Order: sequence, then C-alpha cells, then structure tokens
Amino acid sequence: MYMSHNLDPLFKPKAVALIGASAKELSIGNVIIKNLLHYGYKGPIYPVNPKVDEIRGLKAYSSIMDIPGEVDLAHIVIPPSFVPEEVENCGKKGVRAIIINTAGFREMGAKGLALENDFLSRAKHYGIRIFGPNCQGIINSDPALRAYCNFTFTFPEPGHISIVAQSGGVGAVIMQAFHDLGIGIRMYASNGNGSDVSIPEILRYYGSDEGARAIVLYVESLDNPREFMEVASEVTANKPVLAMTAGRTEKGAEASRSHIGGLAGSISMVQIFKKSGILSFTNQEDLCHAAVAFASQPVPKGNKVGIITNTGGPSVIAIDELVSCGLEIPPLSDKAANELKGTMLESASIHNPLDVVATAGASHFKSALDVFMKEEQFDSIYVNFVTPPFVDCESVARELAAFSKTRVKPIVCNYMTNKKRWESTTKILKDGDIPCFDFAETAAKALSALVRYQRIKSEKKGKVKIFPDVDHELVKEILQNAKVKGTEVLSAVEVYSILEAFRIPVVPWRVATLPDEVISAATEIGYPVVIKADSEKIIHKSDVGGVAVNIRNNDEAKEAVEKMFGKFGHEITFFVQKYMPGGIELIIGAKSENGVGHLIMFGLGGIFVEILKDVAFTISPATDSEAEEMMNSLKAAALINGFRGDKGINRDKAAEIIQRVSMLVSDFPEIMELDLNPLIASGENIYSVDARIIL
Amino acid sequence: MYMSHNLDPLFKPKAVALIGASAKELSIGNVIIKNLLHYGYKGPIYPVNPKVDEIRGLKAYSSIMDIPGEVDLAHIVIPPSFVPEEVENCGKKGVRAIIINTAGFREMGAKGLALENDFLSRAKHYGIRIFGPNCQGIINSDPALRAYCNFTFTFPEPGHISIVAQSGGVGAVIMQAFHDLGIGIRMYASNGNGSDVSIPEILRYYGSDEGARAIVLYVESLDNPREFMEVASEVTANKPVLAMTAGRTEKGAEASRSHIGGLAGSISMVQIFKKSGILSFTNQEDLCHAAVAFASQPVPKGNKVGIITNTGGPSVIAIDELVSCGLEIPPLSDKAANELKGTMLESASIHNPLDVVATAGASHFKSALDVFMKEEQFDSIYVNFVTPPFVDCESVARELAAFSKTRVKPIVCNYMTNKKRWESTTKILKDGDIPCFDFAETAAKALSALVRYQRIKSEKKGKVKIFPDVDHELVKEILQNAKVKGTEVLSAVEVYSILEAFRIPVVPWRVATLPDEVISAATEIGYPVVIKADSEKIIHKSDVGGVAVNIRNNDEAKEAVEKMFGKFGHEITFFVQKYMPGGIELIIGAKSENGVGHLIMFGLGGIFVEILKDVAFTISPATDSEAEEMMNSLKAAALINGFRGDKGINRDKAAEIIQRVSMLVSDFPEIMELDLNPLIASGENIYSVDARIIL
Repeated sequence: MYMSHNLDPLFKPKAVALIGASAKELSIGNVIIKNLLHYGYKGPIYPVNPKVDEIRGLKAYSSIMDIPGEVDLAHIVIPPSFVPEEVENCGKKGVRAIIINTAGFREMGAKGLALENDFLSRAKHYGIRIFGPNCQGIINSDPALRAYCNFTFTFPEPGHISIVAQSGGVGAVIMQAFHDLGIGIRMYASNGNGSDVSIPEILRYYGSDEGARAIVLYVESLDNPREFMEVASEVTANKPVLAMTAGRTEKGAEASRSHIGGLAGSISMVQIFKKSGILSFTNQEDLCHAAVAFASQPVPKGNKVGIITNTGGPSVIAIDELVSCGLEIPPLSDKAANELKGTMLESASIHNPLDVVATAGASHFKSALDVFMKEEQFDSIYVNFVTPPFVDCESVARELAAFSKTRVKPIVCNYMTNKKRWESTTKILKDGDIPCFDFAETAAKALSALVRYQRIKSEKKGKVKIFPDVDHELVKEILQNAKVKGTEVLSAVEVYSILEAFRIPVVPWRVATLPDEVISAATEIGYPVVIKADSEKIIHKSDVGGVAVNIRNNDEAKEAVEKMFGKFGHEITFFVQKYMPGGIELIIGAKSENGVGHLIMFGLGGIFVEILKDVAFTISPATDSEAEEMMNSLKAAALINGFRGDKGINRDKAAEIIQRVSMLVSDFPEIMELDLNPLIASGENIYSVDARIIL
Repeated sequence: MYMSHNLDPLFKPKAVALIGASAKELSIGNVIIKNLLHYGYKGPIYPVNPKVDEIRGLKAYSSIMDIPGEVDLAHIVIPPSFVPEEVENCGKKGVRAIIINTAGFREMGAKGLALENDFLSRAKHYGIRIFGPNCQGIINSDPALRAYCNFTFTFPEPGHISIVAQSGGVGAVIMQAFHDLGIGIRMYASNGNGSDVSIPEILRYYGSDEGARAIVLYVESLDNPREFMEVASEVTANKPVLAMTAGRTEKGAEASRSHIGGLAGSISMVQIFKKSGILSFTNQEDLCHAAVAFASQPVPKGNKVGIITNTGGPSVIAIDELVSCGLEIPPLSDKAANELKGTMLESASIHNPLDVVATAGASHFKSALDVFMKEEQFDSIYVNFVTPPFVDCESVARELAAFSKTRVKPIVCNYMTNKKRWESTTKILKDGDIPCFDFAETAAKALSALVRYQRIKSEKKGKVKIFPDVDHELVKEILQNAKVKGTEVLSAVEVYSILEAFRIPVVPWRVATLPDEVISAATEIGYPVVIKADSEKIIHKSDVGGVAVNIRNNDEAKEAVEKMFGKFGHEITFFVQKYMPGGIELIIGAKSENGVGHLIMFGLGGIFVEILKDVAFTISPATDSEAEEMMNSLKAAALINGFRGDKGINRDKAAEIIQRVSMLVSDFPEIMELDLNPLIASGENIYSVDARIIL
C-alpha cells in the first residue's frame, strides 16, 4: 500500500466521470449522477455508457477515453470482472482517483481478491488512488465545490464536522442524524473494503483540513492498528476525534467478523481509541449529540456546571444525568445570589440550579446568563428552556444566542418546544450556534462529552519506562529453545526464569526431580510450600491433582510427591514454591492482538475478575501514567488503596510490574499470552505465585 | 381527600369556562382559549372577564354566574387571593370540575397553604373536583371532544397512549416527543400541586378508559404511596404502565425535594414501581420509544429475536444493544436457512442476522419476513431498513406493513432514511403501525422494553409468609419500654431479644455486668468471644474502644473488661457473644419510608455494599419470590451460590431471614431502621453478629 498525503483529487475533484452511468432510475449508475446534479456539483459531470447518448440531460460518452476534458475523479459501477480494464483506461486518460462502488471483490472470496489485486496493480502503475471497492463514496460540502460522489440520500448543509465510516450504513445514519439535528457537515467518506485509500489516511486528510472542527469516525476493524494509532495521535493533538466501534458483545463481535472480517475485537478497539486520544462512544446517538456540541461550543475548563431552568422536573433529570456523568453542580456564590435577588421574579428559586420560573422573560434570562458567565466556579452552562406560550420566547432566544456567541463558556440547551410552531425562536437559537437537544438527558450527555474531552486533553500520557536491569539474553535463549522444541506452553521453570530475568517478583521457587530433592528444596525455601507437577503435558494441573498446597513438613511433602508419581509417572519434575496464604489477589495479563501489539490487563483476582469482570486494559507499551490509571479505574479500586483498616497494596510495585510485563511482551512479541494469575500482594510485597506464558 | 371514580367532567367536559380569560396575547388566560379553538374543541367555550366584550371572537362574560348554558369544567387563572371566591361562584353555577392553573399556593408557604385549604373546603361543599393548582391542565384527543384544557404547545393526534405527569415540563417533553415520533396520544394530565384530584385517581381513570392501550407516568413524589401501589397494581393487571421518576442521584433528589417537596427518594420510587408491576425507565427518551412500541405491537412470548437487515454495520450495533438488554439471537433453523437459500440474492448472508443486502427488494423482504414469522424460536423481529436510492422502497415498506398488521410477533424497525425525501415510504410504514426508530440502539431498546414487560407479567409475585412461631408480645413489651424511656437506639440486649423473638438467628450471647460474669458468660458460650460495651450512649463503639474481638481466654476477657471500665466507667454492662471469623458476610436492612412502609435491603457485606453498592431492595412485606429475586439480582450473586469450590450460603435460610425481618418491621412499624450488619453465613448456618434497631 502506497501513501500520498494528498487526497485532493478524491475529495476536491475538478471533474467527475461515471463509468457505468445508467438511464435506469433505480440504479447506482443513475443515482450518483442525480445526486451530483441535485447537490449542485460545480465541475463537469461525464456519464460513460456506450449505449445511450445522454443521461439526465448530460451527454454520455462511449468510453472514458472519449471525454474531451480532463477528469481527475472517476466512479466505477460496472460488474467486477470489467473493473481492471476500466482502471487501465482511467490510467491512460490521466484520472487521478477512482471510487469503485461495485461490490464483489475480496469480500466474496479468492476470485474477487484476484480481481482486486489486478486493478490495484494497474492503479499503482498509473499512480491512481483507489477508493473502495464495495463502498459508498465521498461528499464534500464546500460551497465552492459541492461534490456528492456518493449514492446515499442525505444532502448535508455545509458545516464543521467531517465523517469517516467504515460501514456505509452507519455513515448514512450519522449523516442523517446531523441533518435532522439541523447541523451541517464538512466532508464525508465511506471507503468499503479500503483496498488503497485507508481510514488513517482519510483521518490525516481531515486533520489537515482547516474547515473541519471535529471528526467523527466509525470503524469495526483496522488493517494496520499501529499506523492508525500513530496517525490518530497526530490528529487528536489538534482536533477532537469522536469515534465508535461495534462488537462490544461476543455476539456482536462475531457478526462484525462475519460481515467485515474484523481483526481487532471491541476491547482492543476501545483501547486503541483511548491510546490515540480519541473520545469513544458506545452509542450512535450520544456520538452525534456530542459532535453537535463540539461543532459550536468551546471546551470547558473543568467539570463544574451552572444550571439555568424555567421548569422544575427537567432540571432534576438534568442533574441526575450530569452527576452520573461525573460533572459537578457547585452552589451559587453569595455575590451571585445577591445580584440575582435583585433581578429575578419573586417566585424564582435562587440556587444552582437557578429556576427562573416559567414566566421569566428575556431580562431574567439575560441577568441569569450574565451572572453565570461571571461565576468563576462555573465552567459551563446548562440551560433548560421550555417555550411557554405566554412568554416572548424569541427575545429569550436572542439573549441565549448573544451569550453563546461570546464563546467564553460552553452552553448547551435542552430546548423543549414544538419546533414548527416556534420556528423563529428555533431559528434564532440555531443561528446563535446553541446546541439544542430534545431531552434533558441528551443535553447533559453532550455537555459531559465536552468535559470528558477536556479531561483527556489535560491527562498526562506518561512515559514508557525502560528498565535497564533486565536480562534480555536469558529470555532470548529460553524462547529460542522453546521454539526449537516446538513448545507452545512454557514450563513453570521457563516461565519463572523469564519473569526473574525481567525482575518481576516471584515467590521463592526451586525445581526438583527426586523426592529428596523436593524435600531439600522445600527446606531451603521454608515451609509451608506448594508442590506442582511441572510438565507442559499436564494442563489444568489443580483439577487433576497436579498441585498440592500448604505442604507443612517433610512428611507431607513426601506424600504429595508419591501421589503425583502415582498419577503422572516417575518421569515428571516438580516445581516447589513458597505457599502464600492471605493477602490481596491481583492479576496482570498480556495478550498479543494482531497488528495492535499486546493488550495489557490489570485487575483484582478471584471474584473481581471472574464474576464482576472488574478489569482495566491498556495497549503496550504501558506508560507509568497508564499503569496508575488502570489501578484507579477499577470499581473496587478502594481495595487497592486500603479499605476498612487494611493497608491496600504497594501501588508503586504493582505499577512497576505492569510496566515490566509490558516491556517484556514488547521486547519479545512472540509471547502470545502471559498471565500472572494470581499475584499476591501482602504488606509491601507483591509476588507472582502462578504464571503462564504461551508462544 | 374525597375520591370519586368519575373524572368525566374533568376529562370529558361538555362546556368549558375560563375565569381570568384575557385579550392579551402572551397570557395564560388567552393561550388556553387559543388552544381550545385551535384544537377544535367541540363544546362551547366561555371566556370570563368583566372588562372586555369578546376574546378571540368569543363573547366574554362578566362572571361565571352570567353564563347562560351549563358549565361542567372551569379554568381559573386569576391571582391566588381571588381564587376561593371564584370557586364559591363555580359551586353556585353548578360547575363540577375546576382546573386551577394559577400558582402561588402551598408551594409558596403558609399563606398559600391557607388559601389552598380555603378553596378546597368550598369545593368540597359543592362537590366540585379540583385539578391543580399550579398546574397545566388536561387534554383529551377524542375526535368527538378535542378538549385542550391546557396552556402547552403540542397538538397531539389521537392515539392510544395516555400521559400523566407530575411535572408539567416533563409532561410537555414527553407529549412533544410522541408528536415528533409521529404517534398520537389519548389523554394528557399534569396536575401540579395535586391538592384534590391525585395521580392514583388519574391512573385509575386511564386504566378504565378503553381507548388507552398504554399509560405513561412521570412522578417525583407521592402523597400516599400505599394508595398509589394499590391502584397501580390494579391498573397494571390489565394495561402496561411505563414510568419514570427523577432524583436517582443524591444531588437530583435534593433538587426534587426543593422544587416539589418530595417524600420518597428515587430508590423507594423505583421499588414502588416494581412492586406495582410498572415498567420503569431512567431516561425520558427510552420511555417514549418504548411507548411507541407498546402502542402498536403485541408483547412477545419470550426474549428471542430474529434480525433482518439490509446493511452490515447497523446490525452489529443492534446485536450489541439487544444482547446487552438480555435478549437472545438464536441461529436460523436448517429448514428456514434452506428456504431462504432459494429466495435470497446471491450475496445475501443467510444467518441470524439475515443480511438481505442493500439491493434486496420487496420479494426478498417478503420471503425473509415470511420465514421469520414461521420460525418458532423467534419471538420477535427486528428489522434494519436503510432506504437505498436504487431500490423500490415503497414496495419493501408495504411488505413490512402487511406483516406488522398480522400482529403475530412484534416488529420494530431501525428505519434509516431521509424522511422528507422518502415521504411515501415513511407514510406506508406509519400507516402500517410499524414502530420506526432512527438508530439501531433505540429500536433495540424499544423491543427490549416489550420483552421486559413480558418478563414482568410472567414473574411470580410470590406469597407473604406469616411465621406463626414469633413472639409478638415480647417485642411489643420491649418496644413499649423503650418508648417509655424515650430510647431511640435500642441496646444490644433489646435488639437481640427482639431478633430472637422473631426467630432471626443470632450468635450465642449473654449479658454481664461484673468481670466474673463476663468470664462465666464467655465460658458458657465458648471462646473465642467478642465483648462489647453495651450502652446506647456509646455510638460507633468499635471506633472508641468499646468492642474487643477474638478474646480467646479468661485472661484476655478480664483485660478487655478492665480497659472498658477505664474508658467508660464502671456503670456499663457488657454484651458477650460468640466470635465468628471467616464465612460470607451478608447484610439485611429495613428502613421506614414515609407512607411507603419499609424498604428492605439485602446484600453482601463489606466491600460489596460499601464500595460496589451491590445491594437489592424491595418494599415490605417481602414475598418469598422477592426474597429470592433480591439474592439473584446481585452482581456478585455467584458468591451466594458458591464460587471456586466454596459452597455459597444457605439460600433458604437467607430468604427466610429476609422475610422474618420484613414481617417484624411490618408488624412493628415504629421500627424506623433495622440493620443486621453483618450476618455471617458459614456452612448451613447464618447468624446475625451485629445488629441495630432505631425507633
């Protein structure tokens, strides 16, 4: 795959040809022409169809070669087998980008893949960029261009949000939602199979487009997650990216894989978003609502909200939602309260929320907004505005619009009205760039997305610590040997040697073969001990009698060894380790995800991981801040920090182990899975007492 | 408060007078006339205003007494102090119901309350029902009546959902949402202060109205929760009631209390809903969407969904949401798959979800719907329908509509389109009564509400067990004595005696005063023991050294006693009990809620209750089924049932203790709070080891 940083021929075409243009109403080859015309595309449109003379009043050409003028962008909508030849023709014509809407390529198997490779190599030869195949296309709403190279049905107003969606269906839903919400978009792209022009590339293009204030992304899988993270991190440094993936349930992930062949599950994708500074959503509607706020409002300095309301119930609902999203609703300052006492109606309730009451007019809203804008402890303003038929609502709207225009603090509005009957009021709010929502909950969620973004921007990314005290050579040797032997599951000795080489603390251990050696090992370590049959052939050791815990003396040790000999034969070796009762169980894991690197997991062991699924993730390499955040983000974090007089765990040590594990799997990517389950945290110490490595 | 079961004069007025009618455009007295006229009210409208001759073309009267015809319903919108006199006049005129829109009564303090009591007693004298004050009013969309006795701004089409909202603001939002969703309503009521006509009464009225298929309720507080539960249980036996309350956060509850003087917190309200068979929501939008499904679709027989989609991404999102809501997506039967292989397009994906692909037309949808309706393991059908511009979408819509009309299985549709451009398709779906939603998530949530309702309807309510082996007399005596002494916090001896009287198992205990008595008590019980200083004066005993645990012998007992003498003086008595280390900690609590009865709580102790807030509630009296459900509903329920080889707890015993506690507080409602925290479950036994009762 080759990369050009300039997707202008695709997104800013000077002339568009359509190979496979059709006179038939219900056909893609007709709809695209219709859309280009309807949207008012500023360049020439060239239908290509050898069988007709004109389509929708436009002269049709027998071949792309016959078109008199230059063509920088061509659509291809003809059956798959004819596509490579037409790509060749496009090359001869000097076309610079092609949108292949036609489906039936790699998503249909080997034959399709061969066709895809065929047209890709021809395109490469001519330096043509391919968008698709099996895709919708692009839209550029720039009034100077108005390129609707797409077969969808929504004609967006120009705006400040650009959309890129791997699924055309979801892209269409998002675009239509913005349209219904009354806000415009800047550019749109849904690239289907993504055989050449990729999502990261589109993201970078949007990132450098000054017309886009925010980017909305829907993606189910990534061909190259690392490239994506790199590009996304660059883009999010300057511009908010709001994203969603699907497949957060097992069943959903399965469906995603079957229709799109996704590589990365939803956990990885969410972690990829997080690592890239992307704001992620689990719900299309929340995503769209948030984007509305991002398109028009500044980002608040913090999480403290002042609420102005002219109705009671919706303000209670708003508070519930705001607080649930982690926002704070501080009380009014005395100064502010005093000022408001002089300006509000008698029945007003002068607190935060400030209930100006339903009969409040423009002057009351103005005074309220004035005071709230000055209130230092308010970072943002939430307004409930129901339109009472006995109030001059247009004047109220004018006040709201005027304050919104100052862009000092973000304002969101739960605007409760009949938009058709209050059309002029609605228009004033829209022109004033006030994000308006139908429900208290949706307005609150949109505001909380702005706050969440502020939090992400202000968070430290942290540093990736390089531990110089590790023994790379030893690990390399162990892994090499395992590879030679064809081992997949490492033996306990191999695992513990690797952990020690990376200074990941393990309980004292010894290896022994004969019963006497077991006893001397146990004596050296000090009773009580655990004795394990150490063989890669014995899996689920504890289920089959391969583990004896709390062995307190020589006699017990002997008995345990004899039992295991009886079960597994005399060929086995023993792994003897210190028995650690009590303490807090932790679990640290690493799992290689195709193209992503390793997903690093941290959690409390036992019921917390197995029943409550209370675990935190990041992607390797884990920074120091990420290690800290993983600990903080657990629901049961209180146990880590100490609870009911217990001291909790040594956080620094836990963070260090997380980072050492991360370094180990980053340095040795052949490790597919590593599990320290459990580690026991007791006093200042944390020891791995059971561990597993799979290559 | 007197009750009449007939609210017809209010909801079906034959003539409406408006006392305080105004010629001023932006006034309530004008807006109500305007609304009645605009909505096409079928009866006569009588403006009352001594200063003008006509309002909006209607003859105005100086006084209600001057109106020539009969008046059954009057609005009063004049200032508070004039209201009682006008109520009197209404009585003389023979008015049967009055909507007092005017605010400024009990919500404004003592003077307002006096005015409210004044007009109420006059109304009672004349047998007039009062609606309000401080309220919006009612709407009846019946085409034969079209009564819009309300100052809001939404003019609903006739429909099958009736709304009652304590908050006018929230009521208006819900009504407008239905309007925007394209569905009608049957009746609407927002009764403000609710001084006479109450929410239960309105609920009962809606319940008996054959025109209402579902009822939507918003309520923040209840004057008489028991009456509400009784009425709501009657209504929900025949008709779904969908409800929401607010104040689920501390801050929200506080705001609710300040604007409405709510009695019941949100936990109680949700439990009240549950106990009454009401489907509860935490989000207005979810509630409205669910109501749309209830208004047109049958209730499914179970939770298994068949998905038909013509686009990929949205079906993944739908699956995520459906599965998250507890719905199942079973595979297609072989029979169904074979049938579909013959009818679907080549590129279709024949599974569940069935991807008919974007180019699918009416015949493909017809075949898919046909097969899915026959599939026995599908209880409902979810459809993703994006409108491709190259497909005859009207024909597809006609197929969907035809299948919806059969009402065999519920259908919901994520309808992805530009509704303005696809107007006729949209109309076909609407006329076909197909609930259409803009997002996969919202369609999935609406469907899951139907499934949730089915589950509620099929759940056993259970029985309230009466335990005949309890000693009421003893408890009565202890509580009597405490009352005489003026005690609020009962002593350990009192608490444990009460528990034993109700056969709630407690660890072995004795009371002692002298050191020697302590020792002989400990010896009788058997070491190890716990020794507590038993005085109501010492609160937070363990913090101040009033509790000594794990006392293993006479010496340690003596030492503990001496220490406490030193701290609290020689006047104290001691409470000696068996020390129970290990086991699973449980917590059972009861708390009296004004007018509700007792809220009964069950949970796992320690971190589960304190950090994870993993507790379940019900309202007394707890039935056997409710006790079981409380245990099942915990996130950490696996611990109760046994986890990792541990046996779990004796569930029958736990259920019995819950029910005994429930019976105790029901029989002795003077118990404000009872806490068994913790109980220790060990083997087959469960013992209370620490308990508290507050009167």
